[in-house]
Amino acid sequence: MDAYQCIVTKRDVRRYTETAIDRAALIQILEAGRSSGSARNRQPWQFVVVTDPSLLARLARCGRFATHLARARAGIVLTVDTPRALFDAGRCAQNLMLAAWSLGIASCPVTLQDDAEVRRVLGLPPEPVLANAIALGYPDPRGRGRLERLALAVVAHRGRKPLETLVHWNRHDDRAG
Amino acid sequence: MDAYQCIVTKRDVRRYTETAIDRAALIQILEAGRSSGSARNRQPWQFVVVTDPSLLARLARCGRFATHLARARAGIVLTVDTPRALFDAGRCAQNLMLAAWSLGIASCPVTLQDDAEVRRVLGLPPEPVLANAIALGYPDPRGRGRLERLALAVVAHRGRKPLETLVHWNRHDDRAG
Repeated sequence: MDAYQCIVTKRDVRRYTETAIDRAALIQILEAGRSSGSARNRQPWQFVVVTDPSLLARLARCGRFATHLARARAGIVLTVDTPRALFDAGRCAQNLMLAAWSLGIASCPVTLQDDAEVRRVLGLPPEPVLANAIALGYPDPRGRGRLERLALAVVAHRGRKPLETLVHWNRHDDRAG
Repeated sequence: MDAYQCIVTKRDVRRYTETAIDRAALIQILEAGRSSGSARNRQPWQFVVVTDPSLLARLARCGRFATHLARARAGIVLTVDTPRALFDAGRCAQNLMLAAWSLGIASCPVTLQDDAEVRRVLGLPPEPVLANAIALGYPDPRGRGRLERLALAVVAHRGRKPLETLVHWNRHDDRAG
């Protein structure tokens, strides 16, 4: 896939087919996370790769908007060694998700609020900071149900803000450049 | 460029040629940032694009490791509307930098500690949270000086940790999967 097309067509997708993600693809995705840049090259991350459906189902109960994790073929729980590394965690997560998309695999980040239960499910020690989880699977061509799409459109206006509302040139008050 | 190659070959580069980045390329890079996913599709970001060399030089004095911003052909100061959006800011920054790299443009994030001075330089109101800045430019083929490379290798071990030290399968104590 062309790099620029991969970046701008990546959407956060929550419905996946039954097709498993093979180990080689998971390794390729993880290698892209590993190669991510970070402040002072600290590489503050660890990856817990969850492929066991019963563990994914348990994790899906650890977040308020996490049900798609139970339908995912794999989840990557991303931890960092300090809460100050969340920006770098976001860089790493985007690498993981774009690499997946370059292989035709869809993804969506998942916030897991029930920190204690996540640690129980994964046998995670107290030190690593939970940054986020990423649900992975081949995209379901049926996509979302009509009602779900409508609800999302209302709640979260699914499009993207126009560029001219986001960009300032040289100084904050210069919108035209 | 191939998407996967773009992702895994992207390095944080701090030396740039004199070649300017044209406006069309900047817009293409910004479109990739704009298309980034975010929690509940909030799109919490704004971009201040700095191309004025005198402003870049002033910003370069706002961070402890920010001198490369003065040598950059452009800088993008990324702001978000809440400190909780730093993970999403990281996703957006990676999109900006990978899109740049797909066009042959190198980049490096810059942390600007002197918040008050950044706001003065850019005329930034008090509300937006400074997430990070990104220095951009065509990579200098001469790269780093030998001494600089040696120092960086010592300080920050420039390579990447081996994948097997980062990955756990299903549970934290399973390194082999």
